[in-house]
Amino acid sequence: MNLILLEPSEFDGHDRVRLLASDRRARHLREVLRVVPGQSLRIGVRDGQLGTASVAAAGDDFVLHCRLEQPAPPAEDILILAIPRPKVLLRCVETAAALGFGKILLVRTWRTDRSHVEASALRGEELDLHLRLGLEQAERTALPALTQFDRFRPFVEDHLDRVCGSSTRLLATPQASVELAQLPLPNPRRVALAIGPERGFTEFERDALCARGFTACRAGVHALRVETALAYLMGHVAALRMRAQPPERNWCPAADK
Amino acid sequence: MNLILLEPSEFDGHDRVRLLASDRRARHLREVLRVVPGQSLRIGVRDGQLGTASVAAAGDDFVLHCRLEQPAPPAEDILILAIPRPKVLLRCVETAAALGFGKILLVRTWRTDRSHVEASALRGEELDLHLRLGLEQAERTALPALTQFDRFRPFVEDHLDRVCGSSTRLLATPQASVELAQLPLPNPRRVALAIGPERGFTEFERDALCARGFTACRAGVHALRVETALAYLMGHVAALRMRAQPPERNWCPAADK
Repeated sequence: MNLILLEPSEFDGHDRVRLLASDRRARHLREVLRVVPGQSLRIGVRDGQLGTASVAAAGDDFVLHCRLEQPAPPAEDILILAIPRPKVLLRCVETAAALGFGKILLVRTWRTDRSHVEASALRGEELDLHLRLGLEQAERTALPALTQFDRFRPFVEDHLDRVCGSSTRLLATPQASVELAQLPLPNPRRVALAIGPERGFTEFERDALCARGFTACRAGVHALRVETALAYLMGHVAALRMRAQPPERNWCPAADK
Repeated sequence: MNLILLEPSEFDGHDRVRLLASDRRARHLREVLRVVPGQSLRIGVRDGQLGTASVAAAGDDFVLHCRLEQPAPPAEDILILAIPRPKVLLRCVETAAALGFGKILLVRTWRTDRSHVEASALRGEELDLHLRLGLEQAERTALPALTQFDRFRPFVEDHLDRVCGSSTRLLATPQASVELAQLPLPNPRRVALAIGPERGFTEFERDALCARGFTACRAGVHALRVETALAYLMGHVAALRMRAQPPERNWCPAADK
């Protein structure tokens, strides 16, 4: 936990937050970080700014005096993910939050297992927790908006264009002949990345995505596990982005960890 | 399992391999892939070629007729990894094998937990299994050579140069001011990547690596979990590599999965 993620509603109206003894974050402060009064902590407000907190009390409850001073890191990217099995899904949403996706669209595809669809719909709280773990790891604050679509065709026809807007639309598939690293990023600020199920999108699904402006591409010829592929693909995107547009310096990471 | 990884010693002297009913791969063929006689499977020989097998028998044991026809994918990269906790270590070596690392050097650093060092030394068989799972996932055959060093200074002074040879040497650290995506890769064919422990290398360790030709760099300002960072960093490297030197086409992936 490199950052304590706070809810806007947890503030007392001013700059003070109390974390109850039973709270997950309080337990982490007590049992792992062994925080003492006076200590300084990195904090962030969900969908808001980053800052630091001074620990005013560290008994059972923790009381934090917060100072918010940095804008939230951007989280513009969009992930379109064929629903994987539950354990993989939790790792994927955590990784996606850490990598700065702002929206995650979980989609049932032809080759998605029915049981995975039902499982994921039931896991709201667990998904929310793993999104927060990803943000806490990466010192981000923008909680990705998670939406699930149980039918592929209405998703593509009625929702996809609206959600993706002006983003650069990429469809990662081992069947592609074009390497992601050799593509231009027409809009480097905002990428929409579609990742299929283990056995891939069907031809119909690939065609439907390409008809909506997605470019089929691959990152090498080796099939990776979905959460590995997610990070590997976004590593490519980050490298391409860095060339297209060096990063803004309107906010800084913590000095030393 | 996108590939059945066979040991050279499992061949009967010609092109035939028998997998006993209790073998991990036989169980997978039987219970997950439900393979039947006559079916064709993707195979690879450890540290050797790729090819296809025709299933000659699929009762309790499996008998495969193998045809090796493609050279092994290259695996030239070197990973220098501060020993993480055991569960993370297993995920990391699996990911590293899938990403094509040929050597993995596990190093005890100042901030490495002592219990992790002892645990990793005891896990030879489990580590071997996870390396193989990574190869089977990514259709690779080169089993990474895994070496553990319990003292950092002798490792750097006596082993590092010899192992890394002519590779491009990169030290991933959030403290760096240079972005990996903006570095040249003097030798794009072979990269040595050093990743520190959760709380980072010490200044002494960073200096020691840089004195041996490592360039400190970062991939963005967000701290990622080590297995995510590994894939994310290698995504950057792959994108840089693709520009420096488009891939050789002396071997091909499976047509459709």
